[in-house]
Amino acid sequence: MLSFTCDYTQGAHPKILERLLETNMEKLPGYGNDHYCESAKEKIKKACGCPDAEVWFLTGGTQTNATVIDSVLQKYEGVISAQTGHINAHESGAVEFTGHKVLTLPGHEGRIRAEELETFLKTFWADGSHEHMVFPGMVYLSHPTEYGTLYTKAELEAISAICRNYEIPLYLDGARLGYGLMSYDTDVTLPMIAHLCDIFYIGGTKVGALCGEAVVFTKKNAPRHFLTLIKQHGALLAKGRLTGIQFDTLFTDDLYFQISRHAIEMAELLKKGFAERGYSFFLNSPTNQQFIILENGKLEDLQKKVAFEIWEPFDKEHTVVRFATSWGTTKEEIEELFSFL
Amino acid sequence: MLSFTCDYTQGAHPKILERLLETNMEKLPGYGNDHYCESAKEKIKKACGCPDAEVWFLTGGTQTNATVIDSVLQKYEGVISAQTGHINAHESGAVEFTGHKVLTLPGHEGRIRAEELETFLKTFWADGSHEHMVFPGMVYLSHPTEYGTLYTKAELEAISAICRNYEIPLYLDGARLGYGLMSYDTDVTLPMIAHLCDIFYIGGTKVGALCGEAVVFTKKNAPRHFLTLIKQHGALLAKGRLTGIQFDTLFTDDLYFQISRHAIEMAELLKKGFAERGYSFFLNSPTNQQFIILENGKLEDLQKKVAFEIWEPFDKEHTVVRFATSWGTTKEEIEELFSFL
Amino acid sequence: MLSFTCDYTQGAHPKILERLLETNMEKLPGYGNDHYCESAKEKIKKACGCPDAEVWFLTGGTQTNATVIDSVLQKYEGVISAQTGHINAHESGAVEFTGHKVLTLPGHEGRIRAEELETFLKTFWADGSHEHMVFPGMVYLSHPTEYGTLYTKAELEAISAICRNYEIPLYLDGARLGYGLMSYDTDVTLPMIAHLCDIFYIGGTKVGALCGEAVVFTKKNAPRHFLTLIKQHGALLAKGRLTGIQFDTLFTDDLYFQISRHAIEMAELLKKGFAERGYSFFLNSPTNQQFIILENGKLEDLQKKVAFEIWEPFDKEHTVVRFATSWGTTKEEIEELFSFL
Amino acid sequence: MLSFTCDYTQGAHPKILERLLETNMEKLPGYGNDHYCESAKEKIKKACGCPDAEVWFLTGGTQTNATVIDSVLQKYEGVISAQTGHINAHESGAVEFTGHKVLTLPGHEGRIRAEELETFLKTFWADGSHEHMVFPGMVYLSHPTEYGTLYTKAELEAISAICRNYEIPLYLDGARLGYGLMSYDTDVTLPMIAHLCDIFYIGGTKVGALCGEAVVFTKKNAPRHFLTLIKQHGALLAKGRLTGIQFDTLFTDDLYFQISRHAIEMAELLKKGFAERGYSFFLNSPTNQQFIILENGKLEDLQKKVAFEIWEPFDKEHTVVRFATSWGTTKEEIEELFSFL
Repeated sequence: MLSFTCDYTQGAHPKILERLLETNMEKLPGYGNDHYCESAKEKIKKACGCPDAEVWFLTGGTQTNATVIDSVLQKYEGVISAQTGHINAHESGAVEFTGHKVLTLPGHEGRIRAEELETFLKTFWADGSHEHMVFPGMVYLSHPTEYGTLYTKAELEAISAICRNYEIPLYLDGARLGYGLMSYDTDVTLPMIAHLCDIFYIGGTKVGALCGEAVVFTKKNAPRHFLTLIKQHGALLAKGRLTGIQFDTLFTDDLYFQISRHAIEMAELLKKGFAERGYSFFLNSPTNQQFIILENGKLEDLQKKVAFEIWEPFDKEHTVVRFATSWGTTKEEIEELFSFL
Repeated sequence: MLSFTCDYTQGAHPKILERLLETNMEKLPGYGNDHYCESAKEKIKKACGCPDAEVWFLTGGTQTNATVIDSVLQKYEGVISAQTGHINAHESGAVEFTGHKVLTLPGHEGRIRAEELETFLKTFWADGSHEHMVFPGMVYLSHPTEYGTLYTKAELEAISAICRNYEIPLYLDGARLGYGLMSYDTDVTLPMIAHLCDIFYIGGTKVGALCGEAVVFTKKNAPRHFLTLIKQHGALLAKGRLTGIQFDTLFTDDLYFQISRHAIEMAELLKKGFAERGYSFFLNSPTNQQFIILENGKLEDLQKKVAFEIWEPFDKEHTVVRFATSWGTTKEEIEELFSFL
Repeated sequence: MLSFTCDYTQGAHPKILERLLETNMEKLPGYGNDHYCESAKEKIKKACGCPDAEVWFLTGGTQTNATVIDSVLQKYEGVISAQTGHINAHESGAVEFTGHKVLTLPGHEGRIRAEELETFLKTFWADGSHEHMVFPGMVYLSHPTEYGTLYTKAELEAISAICRNYEIPLYLDGARLGYGLMSYDTDVTLPMIAHLCDIFYIGGTKVGALCGEAVVFTKKNAPRHFLTLIKQHGALLAKGRLTGIQFDTLFTDDLYFQISRHAIEMAELLKKGFAERGYSFFLNSPTNQQFIILENGKLEDLQKKVAFEIWEPFDKEHTVVRFATSWGTTKEEIEELFSFL
Repeated sequence: MLSFTCDYTQGAHPKILERLLETNMEKLPGYGNDHYCESAKEKIKKACGCPDAEVWFLTGGTQTNATVIDSVLQKYEGVISAQTGHINAHESGAVEFTGHKVLTLPGHEGRIRAEELETFLKTFWADGSHEHMVFPGMVYLSHPTEYGTLYTKAELEAISAICRNYEIPLYLDGARLGYGLMSYDTDVTLPMIAHLCDIFYIGGTKVGALCGEAVVFTKKNAPRHFLTLIKQHGALLAKGRLTGIQFDTLFTDDLYFQISRHAIEMAELLKKGFAERGYSFFLNSPTNQQFIILENGKLEDLQKKVAFEIWEPFDKEHTVVRFATSWGTTKEEIEELFSFL
């Protein structure tokens, strides 16, 4: 059946599998010490315009978030996130499992606001009893957010400035980073993110890899003995080549950006099609996730022909649903979908 | 200087010290296996009208909350609390330190609402992706709340019914329980709490003891090997007599209730005095914590003569402050305070 | 360069890559809910002779050990392991990171002994102060052990009987299980392991997969909400197909056993070659890891031509080294090695 | 009944209770910010000859060990201890509960040996795969040990030198420190301990206090925000006065040392009496715990008249038992005991 449920329903971009096949019988050292990892790291550093960055590969988003956040935070610190942030809502408490609180700010279509962040930090430090509270030790953003929205350059700069002022690292969850960078409607670039954030990750799982996320520490700020910490968190692959080769492929000839752009083109097509047919959007998403408001009868009807995700009730008669495109979505699929609307 | 900063500024009720002195040279077994602990437990079970209860003594509130919550929850579960609940706001992340998330509901003058609790639980279980979220495994209330407010019998019954319906335990933090039970304006009794809650604790530290909280498991539901769990959490006193003798004294001849009542009488006096002099209250507290709105000039003036706690800004010109009475507050102190108003 | 450093230097068995390629563009549900995972589970249950088993796929050994052990243990429990057990020695404290102690027994060429296990358990329960200690809550074995050795059927039966007597689960780490089952010198079969153990895992990473371990709960004893626990431990793959397809391939037409047998044949060849040339063995390993004692001069010389692992000093003049074969080792490689001896 | 079971069977030294009584109605700030805590800290720093030390009060030994060790260690580090060390054997896994492994060395009558420590550290750092292991991040000693034995000055100096060489802190558990310092057979002083160790604690619970241990950071090396960390570990007393006043009393007019000396005198008397009557000792303890080998018939007989602790079986016919004296033991009790021998 036609499916737009999410951006990780298919395997890997064919070039990745090809590369895995070509290199398969080479004998390589384990744990990320192979030359493919090395090469992938160099290409990522170059793409980030950040020659001094330290890059590490992990296998999934929740794992990456929990490992990075726990490794960077002091024991008395928590991480600030939007209420709707993935770490707060949909990671089974993986951050708390490592002993750290998620400190929440209101989510505005998935984004936090610089001024609310600043107020939070100011209030914390002004509070006479703050030693009895959890110290804010990091700011977590997702970009794109869980609602497909993006921060602007100005917003990122404002948040980054506050983080530097309060001397806490800014961490950006880029599970879908490619789709954000290739949006028609963004002024944010990868080097800009590397410049403004202290840590971020470039998502592979949702952008064409079988698995894998590339964590970038931009300021020579990787935690000491990070390999040991990764292992302790159960996140160290014996065959590090699996992520190394995938990212090396994704960052060769701009593949990561091209396939992200393709998903965006498909999303814009889909968006236009829904709009032209009079459907309403829950919010204006400039990335590969589109949130449509469906009348409940229409929803039931549509579910028989195409798979998509139920997001949340809108009102008694309507429901918000999500259609996601990906590197693998085709124009034909979009057109087939339109034939059902 | 005159002080109303909190209810733990003085040592212990004199009868407690007397009792510690009398029993001091007796040789007793350690870790709570002495006959004073035994006797105190019996008296507490009787006062609770709950002969099958299991009672344990710990030394402080944060310690008690973290130990109980972590010991009762499954690893995939979190605890539901008001946003303003002590475990969420002022315990340095002690619950998260044990690996569990605090799931928040809005606080209404410190209280959660039964209908919001039910919606939260219903929404969680209806969510198709709830396996990727933290399971709600317990409901945490404080009574009195951090704002001095109380639940009514009807409110507790409603919350308790929801918990039973969803098969999760109801846990009541009674750090100031005596002051709640002896309020002029409550229809809640100790046996009622024992009946409606699965676990609760009777606070000693803030109600006349040097240290000590009595945890009551009301439904033969103490965790297996709870002594070991207490020790693992660093909460097992070698000289268990210290808490046993204190609670035995507090529950002899209704001392706990009498001294709590005294604090309430002092609070009502204080409240009346402020009201008569035209001061406004931030909210209507029926217990020993009173929240007054002071004009900032007055505040500065008053601070020179009497100690109290700054709670939060009210508006540009006013501040919310807290005056707390306790078992040790005297009428003379209240009158001296009035002379400064 | 010729290399025998370990059994995870190459990618995946070619049939696995072929299968990944064939299925790549299929749209499948995430998180292990796809039909390849389902099929793989059925095949594994059949191979185990255990139709009621519950099977889950994780990505690596340390991750699997920590997730399983933490999920199964009560909070007051630890896991018993040989001093040399992988969880005690080479997993960066991943078990302790989850809050549980590893309780050690002496290792006898990597194995624990039933009688020492029984004494440990008897002593624990007889100790009047055992409530102040860590409760033994699970027994961990590795098979093959870290020294390539194997338990006999009689040894496993004895250990299993003790575990049942003390009502604690027996967990077998089968990171290299294939190489153990296909040894020339074993009376242990896969159904026997499924019968005698409560939980075990079938290693993929070291036996032909890119990544992946199949955890088998043999007695309908998977922890409640195990998916959530896996996610909380950062171990849930979004594209569960990656492990599902690999295990489905490994358990089609006995591929897992055939490639394991090949590695054993290569190991026996290697063993014979070293023995014929007068080399001594550190111990008699019946599996794919062979521990040879090299004179230090010879070692330095050999290192220039072939890669292998330094294990530990033997005496002033000799060193123990490890040669590992795998599913990918060729007869030609063995012969080339012999030409250097 | 006559009892020598342990050194925490009685309440507090009478002077402590007297002091609690005298100061009881003073209104003091909470959480250790009162002037009694301040005064106690000053006296302790003076007694340690360490004016720059930072002193904190906690309530019990297990709590202190877990809080200090977890707060000081990096997340990838464990703590080295004798196999028989209290943290490894009798604290219910409280250290592992915080995520850290206890790395064990052989215990020699409770002591570790400098040369074995050095070999352990050298071996760890020489191991090519040490990044896959738990880093040794601290050395834990108990003094007196769990067997009543003591380190000599030379032994402490050797261990301290190794720790400095490897740049890891030396932490001394002084649950019974007074009894060690006042032994007839020691060349170790309190200032010496403060000089050689990075952190240690002066035990109160077992040396005359109701509860309380004074942690001393000797090199301006208290963890940042240690108050918050203490609270997070459930170890922060609201009425910090309780420990402050006790330690202030213990360190006024050398009370701590006098009462410790008294316990030693009683232990020496007891020792002499057993020896004169032909009893054998399990080991030669120079402190307040004496380990006697009793014939099993005698043991049963004696148990009817006097309480003591069963330590461990010696052989088929004999058992090791422990008699402990304390600050409260009287000459009359010792003589009554002798009448039963």
